[in-house]
Amino acid sequence: MKQKIKAAIVIIGNEILSGKIQDLNVHYLAQELAKLGIVLSEVRMIPDAAQAIVETIQHLSSKNQYVFTTGGIGPTHDDITAASIAKAFNLPLEQNKEAVRIMEERAVIINRPLHQNAYRMTYMPMGAELILNSHSGAPGFRIKNVYVMAGVPDIMRAMFTDLKPQLMHDSPIVNKTICVHSGENAIADMLESLNNEFPGLEMGSYPFQLPDHNWHTNLVISGRENDQNLIQAYIKLQNELKALQLSYELKE
Amino acid sequence: MKQKIKAAIVIIGNEILSGKIQDLNVHYLAQELAKLGIVLSEVRMIPDAAQAIVETIQHLSSKNQYVFTTGGIGPTHDDITAASIAKAFNLPLEQNKEAVRIMEERAVIINRPLHQNAYRMTYMPMGAELILNSHSGAPGFRIKNVYVMAGVPDIMRAMFTDLKPQLMHDSPIVNKTICVHSGENAIADMLESLNNEFPGLEMGSYPFQLPDHNWHTNLVISGRENDQNLIQAYIKLQNELKALQLSYELKE
Repeated sequence: MKQKIKAAIVIIGNEILSGKIQDLNVHYLAQELAKLGIVLSEVRMIPDAAQAIVETIQHLSSKNQYVFTTGGIGPTHDDITAASIAKAFNLPLEQNKEAVRIMEERAVIINRPLHQNAYRMTYMPMGAELILNSHSGAPGFRIKNVYVMAGVPDIMRAMFTDLKPQLMHDSPIVNKTICVHSGENAIADMLESLNNEFPGLEMGSYPFQLPDHNWHTNLVISGRENDQNLIQAYIKLQNELKALQLSYELKE
Repeated sequence: MKQKIKAAIVIIGNEILSGKIQDLNVHYLAQELAKLGIVLSEVRMIPDAAQAIVETIQHLSSKNQYVFTTGGIGPTHDDITAASIAKAFNLPLEQNKEAVRIMEERAVIINRPLHQNAYRMTYMPMGAELILNSHSGAPGFRIKNVYVMAGVPDIMRAMFTDLKPQLMHDSPIVNKTICVHSGENAIADMLESLNNEFPGLEMGSYPFQLPDHNWHTNLVISGRENDQNLIQAYIKLQNELKALQLSYELKE
């Protein structure tokens, strides 16, 4: 069987852990990775603390093809991601001349002088390759298999758009969803045998309650876009639901 | 100095990692823990996979006073959280009689027979204490320092409300936020010296762009509610912003 392409996400930021800000980057990246056929193996949210960053990066970069980080690359004193990742790989932190050039050119174009503190964002682990930032200029970077992006969602998305073409990809991971008008209990046995019959697919059930207090359940079958089993299991699931006399609707 | 009360959150669920669902539980729990004065040290989002759950629980329960998990305790075949946590602590999984009684009583009250598969949710590690679920009946549980809750946000919240009085707590961690009408660069030096002057407080800066493309920055000082330094730093920050001739507004 072909090896899966695996990735991990590291959200770096006290503001997430303290509840000040709701993270939006995991959901965006998870969806993008699924489209690229890359399996997201794990997410970690850690504080802006050097030791936590070093340990997390060392561990996850050895276990995954790709690690994507967000947060901690701005110009203030708590932005220690670049220095900590340099430390994780035992590399010196140095000023990236290309980053300086990009930021100085943009300052001229938008007619806004570059503040001296902005230069803090040009320090990266030696050997880093830039990730361009069409949103606000200051680039992120890749070092080894770690892609280091900003935490501000608009900037992160601009950076991910820039780096995406570099990534290996595989058949997209897609979902087929059926909303059953019932709770999970009535479906559990059928879903288990169906999953045993199609072990290469992932089947999940996600119950939710309507305002009238009735429970419905989204059944989701996930697999590779080009996998014939996916469509077979999807058809069989509908037949099984009919056999159980459960009403349902197909979702997008 | 008094020891901080530390906690970790583990979000268990393929549906989060595959991008099907945006997690909402981390943000809720992070805010609740801050109110209790509990420091959230780390969050991990992992798949419904026994090995990942076992390793994550063993690691985080040894490093934190509390671990809160969400997800994987429903009645379907992919709900393996309870069995995996039993394995993490080398405990047998057994049926909890109290859980059976609660669910059977509720079935009578709501006049809806209990499906046989619902009994799957009554199996827990030996010695587990129940976490009550006022939303839909089937309880979560605590074993050692791990609190095991459902992934459905309404149920998770009902469970957290039940378990909350058991937790040790400390002075609430509160935030003072000032929105500065400028990007981060102009504030970076001042904020760094202010943080050096008040090392016990946490200071963060969160830039965001308005529709007119101007950047603003939320400056947030976090500390314990009863810490005199918090209010002193907050006043000093306003004076420093005036000295820098930056306009700003106080936020809630």
